[in-house]
Amino acid sequence: MSGGSRLDPWVDSYAARARGMTASEIRALFAVASRPEVVSLAGGMPYVQALPLDILAETASRLIRERGTQVLQYGSGQGDVTLREQILDVMSEVGITAHPDDIVVTTGSQMALDLVTRVFCDPGDVVLVEAPSYVGALGVFRSYECDIVHVAMDAEGLVPSALDAAIIAARADGKRVKMIYTIPSFHNPAGVTQGPQRRQDILAIAQREGVLLLEDDPYGLLGFEGPPPRAIRADDDQQVVYLGSFSKTIASGLRVGWAVAPHGVREKLVLAAESAVLCPSNYAQFTVSDYLATQPWREQVKVFRELYRERRDAMLETLDQLMPAGTTWTHPQGGFYSWLTLPEGLDSKAMLPRAIAALVAYVPGTGFYVDGQGRAHLRLSYCYPDPDRIREGVRRLAGVIESELELAQTFGTGHVLRDGDGSDNPAPNVL
Amino acid sequence: MSGGSRLDPWVDSYAARARGMTASEIRALFAVASRPEVVSLAGGMPYVQALPLDILAETASRLIRERGTQVLQYGSGQGDVTLREQILDVMSEVGITAHPDDIVVTTGSQMALDLVTRVFCDPGDVVLVEAPSYVGALGVFRSYECDIVHVAMDAEGLVPSALDAAIIAARADGKRVKMIYTIPSFHNPAGVTQGPQRRQDILAIAQREGVLLLEDDPYGLLGFEGPPPRAIRADDDQQVVYLGSFSKTIASGLRVGWAVAPHGVREKLVLAAESAVLCPSNYAQFTVSDYLATQPWREQVKVFRELYRERRDAMLETLDQLMPAGTTWTHPQGGFYSWLTLPEGLDSKAMLPRAIAALVAYVPGTGFYVDGQGRAHLRLSYCYPDPDRIREGVRRLAGVIESELELAQTFGTGHVLRDGDGSDNPAPNVL
Repeated sequence: MSGGSRLDPWVDSYAARARGMTASEIRALFAVASRPEVVSLAGGMPYVQALPLDILAETASRLIRERGTQVLQYGSGQGDVTLREQILDVMSEVGITAHPDDIVVTTGSQMALDLVTRVFCDPGDVVLVEAPSYVGALGVFRSYECDIVHVAMDAEGLVPSALDAAIIAARADGKRVKMIYTIPSFHNPAGVTQGPQRRQDILAIAQREGVLLLEDDPYGLLGFEGPPPRAIRADDDQQVVYLGSFSKTIASGLRVGWAVAPHGVREKLVLAAESAVLCPSNYAQFTVSDYLATQPWREQVKVFRELYRERRDAMLETLDQLMPAGTTWTHPQGGFYSWLTLPEGLDSKAMLPRAIAALVAYVPGTGFYVDGQGRAHLRLSYCYPDPDRIREGVRRLAGVIESELELAQTFGTGHVLRDGDGSDNPAPNVL
Repeated sequence: MSGGSRLDPWVDSYAARARGMTASEIRALFAVASRPEVVSLAGGMPYVQALPLDILAETASRLIRERGTQVLQYGSGQGDVTLREQILDVMSEVGITAHPDDIVVTTGSQMALDLVTRVFCDPGDVVLVEAPSYVGALGVFRSYECDIVHVAMDAEGLVPSALDAAIIAARADGKRVKMIYTIPSFHNPAGVTQGPQRRQDILAIAQREGVLLLEDDPYGLLGFEGPPPRAIRADDDQQVVYLGSFSKTIASGLRVGWAVAPHGVREKLVLAAESAVLCPSNYAQFTVSDYLATQPWREQVKVFRELYRERRDAMLETLDQLMPAGTTWTHPQGGFYSWLTLPEGLDSKAMLPRAIAALVAYVPGTGFYVDGQGRAHLRLSYCYPDPDRIREGVRRLAGVIESELELAQTFGTGHVLRDGDGSDNPAPNVL
C-alpha cells in the first residue's frame, strides 16, 4: 500500500516516515461501534463520571479568578515546578524517589513516548517491545522508522530469556538496540503484571547490555490486590526512563503526563518538548496541581480502583460462565484490560464485523503487533461500561464466537478479511 | 560542541537529531533578566491581563459542571468538530474559506509546525525561511535535521527574487526543496508585513516550483491599521498549509492552535498528531469553544489591538527620541515586535550582558538565524510591559548602545562573546 492516495498531489513530497502514516480499515468499523446500542469492550476510556465534577468546576473557576494571568500565560518548557514536586508524592506510591528537576511534564504521557523516541532513535534502530504491545507506542516507534522487534510474554509479562535472545539476534544482525519498552503493571493489552523478581531480571539485562529501559506506567496505581507494584525505576535512576500519567487517576481530557529521566536525558527531553509544543498548558497543569493540593486524591484513586475491580469481576465471571471451550483469557489484577485467545482456527479481525453486527465491539489482536500477528487474540476492556453492560457484551461475544466455531467446523477457516499494511491503528479513544 | 556532557552515560545512544538539541548560553542571561527590576523587551508573552478573567472562570466552571464527562475525557485526534467550525469563523477575518474537515486542532500552533515538518521533511531536505525567522520554527526544522536556508527580506518581507534564486541554488546542489516557511503578517522578529502583491508573487513561485507554502499567522488579527491582511491561503487551498493560534487572541496558556491543510496532507497530520499526543485537550478546546460561542471575541481582539498599538507607539516614539545616530528599526503595523539594527561595528550578543546589567533585556539577532548571522540586530518586544516601562526600557537601551559606541570608538570592535553552536534558542517565554 502506498503512502497516500493517487489523487494526493503531495504524495511525492512526504518524508519517508510518513509512509507508515496510514489509517487502518478497522477505523470505519469503530465509527459504527460507537452507536449506543453497541456494547463497546473496545475503548480504553477511563470512567470520568466517577470524578467529583463540582469540585473540579470550583477548582478551575478559582484558579482563573485568582491566578488567571499565570494560568492563561506561557509557562516553562519543563513544566510547573509545584506540579513536579507533587508528582514526586504521586510516584512515592510506586517506590520512586527523585528530584523535581528530573521530571518533564508533557501533554499526556503519549507525548513523553514521542519525545524519548525522538531523542534516542534514528531510523533502523531497534526498539524491543512486548508481544503484544500498546498501540500508541507502536505508532510512535513506527513514525520514527524504528525497527520494532516483539519479545514474547508469559503470565508474568516480558520473558527475560526471550529479551536476551532478541538483543543478541539484533546485534548479530548489525543493528543498534536503543530501547526496551515495557508496561510492567496491568499491561495494555495483555492484562498481566511483572512480579518483583521478573522486574529485577529485566532491569539486570538492561544494565548488563547498556540498553535504555522505557517503563510506561499509566495504570500502576489501579491495582485491585495489595499495594501498587514497585516501579522498576525505583531500583535504578540511571538505566530507566519512567512515564507517568494523570489520565487514569484524574482525567484524560486534561492531557497531563510526565517523564522521569537521568540528568542528561532530561535536558534533551526539555529541548525536544520546547520544539514540539513550546510548553505544556498551564491551564491543565494548574488544575491538576490544585486538585492534588486540595482534594483527597488518594481516596479518589481508591474509588476508581473499586469501580474497575467490580467491572473486572463482572467480565471474568461472565467469561467463565459463557465462553465456549478452547477460549482462554488473562486475569488482570489491575488496569483496564483482559487479553482473550480464540479457539483454534478463529480470526479476531475477520470476526469483528460480525461482532459489531451482534452489537458488541472489541479490538482485534492485530492492532497490538507490527508484524501481522494477533489474529488469534483480541483485547477486552472493562473500564467504561457498567457491570450489567459488560455482562451483556460478553454474552453477545460468546454467541458470536460460538457461531464462528460452527461456521469453521462446517466450512473450514478460510474466511479472512483482506489485510491492510498490518498497522491496525485505532483512533485515540480506543487506545 | 558535542551533543551532551562528557558525564552523560547516554551520550553515545542519542539519535543524530539530538545533536542539535543544546541549550544556548543566553538562557542563563534570561534567567537573570526575569528579575522584576529588569525591563524585559525580550519576551513574546501576550498581555493576558487584559482578558475578562471572571467570564473565563465562569466558562470553565460551567463547562465542567454541565459537560464534565466529555470535557475531562479523551477526544478526537483531529480536534472537536464544533471548535473546528468556529475556527472557520475566525479565519473568515483573513479571507479564508474552508471545511471543518480541513482543520487539525493542535497543542498550540508550535505543534502544528512540528507535525507539518514531520510529515514532509527527511534529513537534508531544504526548508526556505526568512532571514531572520521565528526561533521556534528554526528549532523544529533543526530537530528534523532539515537543511535550513535563509532568504533575504526587505521592508515588505520575503523577497521573491531571492526566493527564486534560493530554490534554483538548492536544486542545482541536488537538494530537495520541501517547504517555504513564511510569516506574512507582522513578522516575528522582523516586524514587517507582506503587501497583497508581494503575497501573490510568493504564492506564484510556490505554485510554479511545486513547493509547499507554510503560512504561519499567529498575529494576523492584531493589525493596527485597517482590516487584517488577507491570508495567502485565501487564494490557494492546495498549495498552502496555514497555521493559526489562539495564543495571542485569547490565551497562550490554553495551548490551542490549528492547521488548515489540503485533504491528503490533513489525513497525514491527524495520524501524526495521534502519534504525538493522542488528542488535543478537550478541557482547553471546550474552553476556547465556549468562549467563542458566548463572548464578543471580536471586541476582545479589538481591546488587544488598541493595547498593543499604544505600546508600539510608546516604543517607536522613544526610539525616535533617544537612539543614537546609525541605529535603525522597523515600524510594525501590528503584532509584537520591532527589529533593530545597531550602528556599524556593534554586536547585539556581546552587548546583552551589559544591557542586563543596565536593567533592560532584548533578544540578540543571532537567535533568529541558524548560520551565525544576526549580531548587528536585536528584537524588541512591546507586547508585555506597559507604555511607561517600555519608554524606560528603551531609554536604558539607548544608554547602553551609546556606551558601546564610545567603547568601540576608543578600543575598536573586538570585544565579542565566545560563540556556541549558533543556535541561540531562548526559553519558550521569550519566543
